[in-house]
Amino acid sequence: MEYYSKQISKLIEELASLPGIGHKTAQRLAFHILNMPLDNVQSLSDAIIDARKNVRYCKQCFTLTDDELCPICKDAKRNHREIMVVENTRDLTAYEKTGKYEGVYHVLHGAISPMLGIGPNDIKLKELMQRLQGEVDEVIIATNSSLEGETTAMYISKLIKPTGIKVTRIASGVPVGGDLEYIDEVTLLRALEGRVEL
Amino acid sequence: MEYYSKQISKLIEELASLPGIGHKTAQRLAFHILNMPLDNVQSLSDAIIDARKNVRYCKQCFTLTDDELCPICKDAKRNHREIMVVENTRDLTAYEKTGKYEGVYHVLHGAISPMLGIGPNDIKLKELMQRLQGEVDEVIIATNSSLEGETTAMYISKLIKPTGIKVTRIASGVPVGGDLEYIDEVTLLRALEGRVEL
Repeated sequence: MEYYSKQISKLIEELASLPGIGHKTAQRLAFHILNMPLDNVQSLSDAIIDARKNVRYCKQCFTLTDDELCPICKDAKRNHREIMVVENTRDLTAYEKTGKYEGVYHVLHGAISPMLGIGPNDIKLKELMQRLQGEVDEVIIATNSSLEGETTAMYISKLIKPTGIKVTRIASGVPVGGDLEYIDEVTLLRALEGRVEL
Repeated sequence: MEYYSKQISKLIEELASLPGIGHKTAQRLAFHILNMPLDNVQSLSDAIIDARKNVRYCKQCFTLTDDELCPICKDAKRNHREIMVVENTRDLTAYEKTGKYEGVYHVLHGAISPMLGIGPNDIKLKELMQRLQGEVDEVIIATNSSLEGETTAMYISKLIKPTGIKVTRIASGVPVGGDLEYIDEVTLLRALEGRVEL
């Protein structure tokens, strides 16, 4: 990359180190940045370092936030007796976007994976059990529908059942609008097993 | 976007304002950044602002650089009597990647476009003509093969011809490995017109 001067090369290299950003895209982004007004570039640069410097886990649900409590845990209008367990903050956001869930969350930051050597102690499970000492009506397990997600769901449900708190798992089946023809067999069987009376 | 805290939302927003970065990608990048070691984030943030703050045009060829002269113009081993005219720094890089071109460049920063109201005075054309006062054997016009690129090539060649300096245009035709079936008619005709004897 000798054809760029040092700082431009450095910028391209930094951008290309981000996930999903190849060298061509990094180059395109770099030239866009070089042509942006200085104020906007300052604002981008600040946003990156500020968010990273101040990011922390919500002390209650462990989602990423920049305050002691996240906006959801702070919200008195939410149902704090209903906890949805998700693998990460992006999954939380996916449910928040539906605008229909009124409970709170618990972010595990991972899923149990014997293959990757991730055990129950490597995710925020102890913290979930501590929360259940309080007043909780239901724990909804919304880990992914992957091997790890299912393992984690099983593990958590076994852990919670003795406490008497209701544990549920989000339904798995054919996605809305999904064409049966293109859906994998495991999902089709899951949808059949989970059939409900009409 | 209330479900993220303020600084995380701000970061996602800033990233999503970059070209080709949609909201989902911005979110993915933001969470990656939040999980990066602080040193690496500092380095990314610095690279952005440093490159933008120090960027300037090479005083000879007008490519983007952070020094008075770009690495190519500084290089005594290059043939400074052969100037390739390109529309922008990315086009320069494309030719540099071939590793075969030994001359120098002139970056126009645009192309003449009556439709967009970009005239000869809006690109670095005056600066090119000034360079031609020096010792130059050949000017190779490598503007894009678009309407604007062709218009610019024509305009430059008319401007240079009276000086007696050799003016050439990069060949246009079927790309190497290109399947005729999928190539547009204009290119096919161009390839026919430009046929060479074997």
